[in-house]
Amino acid sequence: MSIKGSLPESFTSYRTPVRAELRKVVDSCPPVLRNMLRYHMGWQDEHGHSCQRESGKFIRSALCLLSCQAVGGDTSQVMPAAAAVELIHNFSLIHDDIEDASHERHHRPTVWRLWGQSQAINAGDAMFTLAYLALLKLKEKGITDEKIIGSTKMLSRACLELCEGQYLDIEYENHLDTTIEDYLNMAVKKTAALFAASTSLGAYLGSEDSKLVEFFRLFGKELGIAYQICDDILGIWGMEESVGKSVSDIFQRKKTLPVVYGLQTSGGEARKRLKKLYSQKSIEGEDITEVMKILNRLGARGYAENLAEQYYYKALAHLEATGLDTSRQAPLKQTAQFLLKRDF
Amino acid sequence: MSIKGSLPESFTSYRTPVRAELRKVVDSCPPVLRNMLRYHMGWQDEHGHSCQRESGKFIRSALCLLSCQAVGGDTSQVMPAAAAVELIHNFSLIHDDIEDASHERHHRPTVWRLWGQSQAINAGDAMFTLAYLALLKLKEKGITDEKIIGSTKMLSRACLELCEGQYLDIEYENHLDTTIEDYLNMAVKKTAALFAASTSLGAYLGSEDSKLVEFFRLFGKELGIAYQICDDILGIWGMEESVGKSVSDIFQRKKTLPVVYGLQTSGGEARKRLKKLYSQKSIEGEDITEVMKILNRLGARGYAENLAEQYYYKALAHLEATGLDTSRQAPLKQTAQFLLKRDF
Repeated sequence: MSIKGSLPESFTSYRTPVRAELRKVVDSCPPVLRNMLRYHMGWQDEHGHSCQRESGKFIRSALCLLSCQAVGGDTSQVMPAAAAVELIHNFSLIHDDIEDASHERHHRPTVWRLWGQSQAINAGDAMFTLAYLALLKLKEKGITDEKIIGSTKMLSRACLELCEGQYLDIEYENHLDTTIEDYLNMAVKKTAALFAASTSLGAYLGSEDSKLVEFFRLFGKELGIAYQICDDILGIWGMEESVGKSVSDIFQRKKTLPVVYGLQTSGGEARKRLKKLYSQKSIEGEDITEVMKILNRLGARGYAENLAEQYYYKALAHLEATGLDTSRQAPLKQTAQFLLKRDF
Repeated sequence: MSIKGSLPESFTSYRTPVRAELRKVVDSCPPVLRNMLRYHMGWQDEHGHSCQRESGKFIRSALCLLSCQAVGGDTSQVMPAAAAVELIHNFSLIHDDIEDASHERHHRPTVWRLWGQSQAINAGDAMFTLAYLALLKLKEKGITDEKIIGSTKMLSRACLELCEGQYLDIEYENHLDTTIEDYLNMAVKKTAALFAASTSLGAYLGSEDSKLVEFFRLFGKELGIAYQICDDILGIWGMEESVGKSVSDIFQRKKTLPVVYGLQTSGGEARKRLKKLYSQKSIEGEDITEVMKILNRLGARGYAENLAEQYYYKALAHLEATGLDTSRQAPLKQTAQFLLKRDF
């Protein structure tokens, strides 16, 4: 999901220290692997020359640090965890690009396109490992051993969900009977689990109140679902420039929410035709335009927007349930609103 | 490397509890991923029916537990670490089979051949995550938080080396100028790092003597190099049945030790011809026979066997340097001898 417009200050304030932490971790990697990782992060080009093509917005690390800040924790202590969730996200992108055979990410060739699939698998594995090594740096920040172990467990559980979500995302490409429930289960695993790990890690490392941590986990989870739905909408109706990729979700027959809705709803002929289009091995050219027309006719966009809104409000309800001062909640609320690009 | 003949009792004694630990961890995985992992482990067929096709010999977990036993530790406490090193090895095999486009492993289709590359990447990622979750179970066994963190760091560092080794292994396919030094560096990363992590984890969790841990690390490292060289020899001169794969090392132009030796040695015409054969995109049919003939003529097998022997003795020297009773060293010594299938 591309993020345009001015980023809220609360969101951007952690960008510089997070980048510094990420660079430190990535640069500790053996050179042969580091080149691929630095390229993926947008810090160097394919020839190893420095460049500024960073496209990630460090959403997950921002959520981690803002959650820590909200509970009154010391964000500088939590920086290694913020780096870890970002590294997990990026490892998953490198592997995801292979799995989806994506040629470009943010207008640059993907890692596998430049180094081949095999080395891109290794690059992803290395970044995965770096996430754990990043997390272990919490010790240098004075975080207790018990909390480091707790954090490792939280992150690992999220990773396992992420793997399951990735599995389902691919598996559903070949299904026509994916239900809204299936979709939501996939979105929870694929996206919301790491959002939830990010917010709960921030709260867990910044406070001793386990009830508070649980509210932050739920906030992250519901926000993650809303974010995935918005990403789905952008994947169909977003301008090609803003997402930096073509309408590959339709091409690959991804069971994004608007499509699942379209295939499930009682739309008569339109639905039948959509089913036929999605029975093909891939959807190309004019068929893509037709899919979009059908989805428009069936009101799939409105349905998805409405559901995203519902999850957004659920997320906020969990944030409010923390009972923290509204001034403490504000940066996370602003960030949530901004991420969904909506004036709900 | 296939292991024939009767396994020494010291080596097999841990098979049953390690398998039980591994099954517990793998079964905690979401069903969609679990099926692929159980298949890979040889516990079920591709349709999900139970079967007994386990081919792994749990070498790394045995090394971990025997090292723990040697230093007088409680092996039952260390079982989660033994499972973790085995899971790391198996995650790496699943990804390695994709990277090398291997169709079979121990006479069964590889995971990617049955589920496709994308899902096999996810399966490997899941197994990687499970290794960390396995390690965290050390807490239930009464291992201190400090040692759990130390173990996580040791395992992560080995993983990073493993990724680098995998990178080099593929990278060198396209090189003709790989030196013996390059080869050894690759073998240390690709194989010896995880052997070293296995032995040092066992010693670290079983004792408080850091010098002892270092000797076990070095023992594992040198043994790992010797093992990789023996595996290289088997990959060329081993019977197809015993390795469960064709002479794919030659087909894929892998820079195994005998080949590196052949390409580097001053062998006149024979060496020139070998270079020409290895300049092809792949080596097939009669060319494979010719490669073997040339390697025989150049004495590449003898060279490799001799080097393996040297590393075997280096490994034993580190074991002896521990100063532990010879009776305590014996099971590891037996295992090392058995792994290399040699009466040195």
